[in-house]
Amino acid sequence: MENNFIYGKNPIYELLLKNAKRINKLYIQKNFSFDNRMKKIVELAKENKIVISQTSLNKFYEYFEERPNFQGVVASVSPVEYIDLEDFLAIKKDGFKKLVILDGVSDPYNFGSIIRTSVAAGFDGILISNHRSCPLNATVEKISSGAINHIPVIKTTSLSGSIDLLKKNDFWVIATKMDAKDNYYEIDYTDMNFAVVMGSEGKGISKTILNKADFTVKLESDFESLNVSNATAVILYEAKRQIKIKENTNLR
Amino acid sequence: MENNFIYGKNPIYELLLKNAKRINKLYIQKNFSFDNRMKKIVELAKENKIVISQTSLNKFYEYFEERPNFQGVVASVSPVEYIDLEDFLAIKKDGFKKLVILDGVSDPYNFGSIIRTSVAAGFDGILISNHRSCPLNATVEKISSGAINHIPVIKTTSLSGSIDLLKKNDFWVIATKMDAKDNYYEIDYTDMNFAVVMGSEGKGISKTILNKADFTVKLESDFESLNVSNATAVILYEAKRQIKIKENTNLR
Repeated sequence: MENNFIYGKNPIYELLLKNAKRINKLYIQKNFSFDNRMKKIVELAKENKIVISQTSLNKFYEYFEERPNFQGVVASVSPVEYIDLEDFLAIKKDGFKKLVILDGVSDPYNFGSIIRTSVAAGFDGILISNHRSCPLNATVEKISSGAINHIPVIKTTSLSGSIDLLKKNDFWVIATKMDAKDNYYEIDYTDMNFAVVMGSEGKGISKTILNKADFTVKLESDFESLNVSNATAVILYEAKRQIKIKENTNLR
Repeated sequence: MENNFIYGKNPIYELLLKNAKRINKLYIQKNFSFDNRMKKIVELAKENKIVISQTSLNKFYEYFEERPNFQGVVASVSPVEYIDLEDFLAIKKDGFKKLVILDGVSDPYNFGSIIRTSVAAGFDGILISNHRSCPLNATVEKISSGAINHIPVIKTTSLSGSIDLLKKNDFWVIATKMDAKDNYYEIDYTDMNFAVVMGSEGKGISKTILNKADFTVKLESDFESLNVSNATAVILYEAKRQIKIKENTNLR
């Protein structure tokens, strides 16, 4: 599957000025003689905390063979726009908001599948870090089965800072942890804005983030842990189940 | 990822006699001049309802390039042994048995992930049909993260017949259906042997099977349906949740 790429100095410079958030990564040719425009590109990329990969000319030809006219720089971009957490918080909604936070989920199949499930379960947004996370790309878009166009994805340069901001804005943060005391179904998801934090496939949730959580919950398993996309589905649908039952009770 | 293959007439003939169930598919060279052994192989394969693929010599070289000594026939085999439904039913267990039935799940990622979730959720077996289903292969084994070795997989040539046999053996059959009246969480999973039937990614559950189900349940979605592996995780963990809560209540 093809990724979304933008080639050449001018288009990338313009994108960095106008919508740097769309850029997942910059590939810059190793030993390329930098002109002023290229220096400016590197500067803007660093300001926006975009990952830069120094790539040999051979690798360039290998990755981007059909577009050799790359002028030393290629940007991998998201097929949709990311939004800021502030903009997400500003969205008006009747009732409570539900957010999924991914701390370092790096597999595009898991990420795409989590997007699809989040929309299906009626969640309002997905927050990812721009480090250690799979970016939005064409694979993720395909696996999400189009769901990517139905939910805002928030990209942050500091997960920790974003969680502080969420808590200030009346969100409760729920983190999953193997050895937590409470089960995921022992939380009442029906009367608060909340964010569920899911950890990476290998490492789980980082300690800093765990320490900031209001609740930690476990998802018990008779074997190893679940795959992160399945674990997310279980928790999001438990929230959906509780909310649905409460709505039906209120209707009676 | 490599599949598991067995090459050549004699090894395949022996396997057909002793453990035909392990064979997922036979590749037989197109226009190959059949000797008696080969005729016998085809005969045994048909008796055991094994899918036979007529494959051109070019394709043979392409698929199995590192093993050109295939004598006109290659078998793709499961990395683990399948068991019969009768043997599954004969396994002794305290308490109720829980089975997952896959009606035509063809994606190896979904299949592998469902195996992992089934073990995690404490299910006792997985039943698949030998038609329209992804067979157990090396990809499935890897995605299952080793779980394949912790749960019996039952392969049947007639899903419909197997469901009849399950019902005769005191199993209740629960099928998922988009427009069912009840939600998946409105079933009591705690006081019966049951089998949850999940449909294929594209087509859902076939009509014959739906008609045999004791219950049909829906899994509501605000978007399209969930990916089949996520949907399975949600339902299996709802059963696990109910069983856990009942156990804790009984302990008090």
